Amino acid sequence: MEVGSRSQDQAVNGVCPHFHAAIELIGKRWTGAIVSALTEGPLRFGELARAVPGLSDRLLSQRLRELEEEGLVEREVEAGTPVRVTYSLTEKGAALRPVMQELKQWARRWNKTA
Amino acid sequence: MEVGSRSQDQAVNGVCPHFHAAIELIGKRWTGAIVSALTEGPLRFGELARAVPGLSDRLLSQRLRELEEEGLVEREVEAGTPVRVTYSLTEKGAALRPVMQELKQWARRWNKTA
Repeated sequence: MEVGSRSQDQAVNGVCPHFHAAIELIGKRWTGAIVSALTEGPLRFGELARAVPGLSDRLLSQRLRELEEEGLVEREVEAGTPVRVTYSLTEKGAALRPVMQELKQWARRWNKTA
Repeated sequence: MEVGSRSQDQAVNGVCPHFHAAIELIGKRWTGAIVSALTEGPLRFGELARAVPGLSDRLLSQRLRELEEEGLVEREVEAGTPVRVTYSLTEKGAALRPVMQELKQWARRWNKTA
């Protein structure tokens, strides 16, 4: 992400590069839906797959890895047979809750009549 | 967008299809940045291009057309030489302001330390 020297100009014009990165991160196909499902609490892989229907297991795994890399999601492996893998939001991920809530309100208010 | 019969199941699982549509709409490459720039007030095409640097005029035009189709942006043409074209948020588009503000706060708080 090219921040640095251009960020001051962009901030003056109203579009801060951090904001731009953030909106494209959570807007990436399925990412917002996954984060939104996890705001209710930790979920196992199969539960997440049911909470966000329509994407393949492969794509769900990929998005979860990206979210781990961004520091939004934590993966916890519990020993046992079978191994249990649980996904939860980090503090950074959980801090997106107000964004998700505002967007849900907007969607309820405006998308029905669209 | 397939809403209808599946929407109740999905709502139970936490991911409402209206929310899903909304987050993918504003997260589409450059769309969030354009809406964000317009939350400050109406802008002409050239002003928008400067406010959201990095995308071509062709892509900016395309995104603006999409936002018009979604009912988020209004295009106003003032007669004269040269013709002046101004873009502004509709009521539906302006209602995204709280979402943008929450996301900006999050980006400022978390993306610097990422």
